[in-house]
Amino acid sequence: MSAAIPDLRGARVLVTGGLGFIGSALAARLARSGAEVAVIDALIPEHGGNRRNLDGSDGRIEIATADVRDEAALKRLAAGRDFLFNLAGQTCHMDSMADPWTDLDINARAQLSILEVCRRANPGVKIVFAGTRQVYGRPDSLPVGEDHPLRPVDVNGINKLAGERYHLLYNDVYGLRSCVLRLTNTYGPRMRVKDARQTFLGEWIRLALRGKTFEVWGGEQLRDFNYVDDVVDALLLAAGSVRANGRVYNLGGERAVPLAEVAALLIETAGAGAFKVAPFPEDRKSIDIGDYHADSTRIRSELGWSPRVSLREGLARTVEFFRERLEDYA
Amino acid sequence: MSAAIPDLRGARVLVTGGLGFIGSALAARLARSGAEVAVIDALIPEHGGNRRNLDGSDGRIEIATADVRDEAALKRLAAGRDFLFNLAGQTCHMDSMADPWTDLDINARAQLSILEVCRRANPGVKIVFAGTRQVYGRPDSLPVGEDHPLRPVDVNGINKLAGERYHLLYNDVYGLRSCVLRLTNTYGPRMRVKDARQTFLGEWIRLALRGKTFEVWGGEQLRDFNYVDDVVDALLLAAGSVRANGRVYNLGGERAVPLAEVAALLIETAGAGAFKVAPFPEDRKSIDIGDYHADSTRIRSELGWSPRVSLREGLARTVEFFRERLEDYA
Repeated sequence: MSAAIPDLRGARVLVTGGLGFIGSALAARLARSGAEVAVIDALIPEHGGNRRNLDGSDGRIEIATADVRDEAALKRLAAGRDFLFNLAGQTCHMDSMADPWTDLDINARAQLSILEVCRRANPGVKIVFAGTRQVYGRPDSLPVGEDHPLRPVDVNGINKLAGERYHLLYNDVYGLRSCVLRLTNTYGPRMRVKDARQTFLGEWIRLALRGKTFEVWGGEQLRDFNYVDDVVDALLLAAGSVRANGRVYNLGGERAVPLAEVAALLIETAGAGAFKVAPFPEDRKSIDIGDYHADSTRIRSELGWSPRVSLREGLARTVEFFRERLEDYA
Repeated sequence: MSAAIPDLRGARVLVTGGLGFIGSALAARLARSGAEVAVIDALIPEHGGNRRNLDGSDGRIEIATADVRDEAALKRLAAGRDFLFNLAGQTCHMDSMADPWTDLDINARAQLSILEVCRRANPGVKIVFAGTRQVYGRPDSLPVGEDHPLRPVDVNGINKLAGERYHLLYNDVYGLRSCVLRLTNTYGPRMRVKDARQTFLGEWIRLALRGKTFEVWGGEQLRDFNYVDDVVDALLLAAGSVRANGRVYNLGGERAVPLAEVAALLIETAGAGAFKVAPFPEDRKSIDIGDYHADSTRIRSELGWSPRVSLREGLARTVEFFRERLEDYA
């Protein structure tokens, strides 16, 4: 039995990190579906939030510029919500090593605050938490299922693991219905292309569209990719499923793709740019996870999810979006 | 090949949580072995630190009353040390649920500070971290080996997991030699008997010695126990082993013992007190882990450790200690 995307007309929804790449795509989709949407986003320059991401929402979405570390703001915004999509996070692996405390504050401490606020002010809310494949660390074998050992190789992975465990704990102990999606590389319109803080692919897109040459480290390394609309589908399916409560689900791309193949496809799609394969820089090698490809059997069978947008099609849509708006994002 | 307890004469050693139950036993042992020992302890009333624990050390041990959250104090104390035994922690499962932030600050944030201080001020130090079997959550099967899935069932377990992962990460990424021991129920002289914040056994001992009746929840539940001197042995073996760097080791008792058997043995040993079996209180049941017994094969084979003090003998020594000093600790 597969779940279905819930009827969202009139649903009161809060999206943390809602001016970010995935958060804004979700918020816009929710608003189009008739939900009453608020987003909270701190617009931290190094993170994914960007006011332009909700341009055109025309007052249909309440936008609160506040930090998830701000409990008073959270309390006001979380009260009375039917759904909370918890997408606020620090995503950059390198930044988590340079400043582990900020990563801890956002990815662990603020998550506790969000859960405590909900437990006290709105225990009936349903929460979907955006986790990460980074919690697995270096895979023992591919594809990686949800029961793979958890051995994160950077501070970000450790703190994101704490964040997801808190969500499962509050589900199990307090009955605060929560579930976790472990995202893999997500790409699409509105992604961060200014640098590689969200994913290396963002940086590649900016450089390709500017006709520049970018470096691909290693080249043969395998990754899987999800187009943002497919991730939004998964978030909504999880929100609508009773079965998902207390569960962890991998998202995952249709196949594992060598990075050099992704780079070649991007350049073909953009009709510009070039890449060269270079060795992994020393400071990144120590926190690199090697090949990765998710086993997403669980979410496919339990929630009926599957990615619908191929890498080729998704890259075409993404390049199209940024072709016109690169200077707004770069 | 088994490791050996290193020659500690002249070694400069820092013990965090060094006025606590295990920390003070370790510090005293180190001082007796000729090491130059400093301890740092915040003496937080709800934690295990107690000035009496190092009575009689006669100036041989430098005692700093400071919090591991205090980076300046840490920096001064960590500089120039050969070994750091990192035992400071919040141990109470219930307190971690009532105040998850303090648990996070001590068990995760302060651990990052300790590691950052060492990385910058003393990268040659060898660190042994006191972890906990709580990171496993409810065992899938017994005995529980180090590769058992990590599914902590309380905030304390989640934060202690982050703490141990930071230690392994700093070993792997920065070459800051660290290893983790996952302790099970430890008991012995100087344990906290004022309440059940360190282990239920402490409370039982106080009540038995006062001729009172204590409650044993469930009664058939299995636990394993280590006498404190055996834990000190393990900490020293880990410190002396190159092989231990970046490794996790379970400690574990010789056998799994039903709680009612432990209670009966305690009452026999104390010659006082009584117990009655009662059902698990609701608020504890939700964070209880069920039966637990560690598989300690790894530390036995790699470090040559084995517990030498039986539960009967250990309880006798513990009861003897507290018979004379109960009012100092209760």
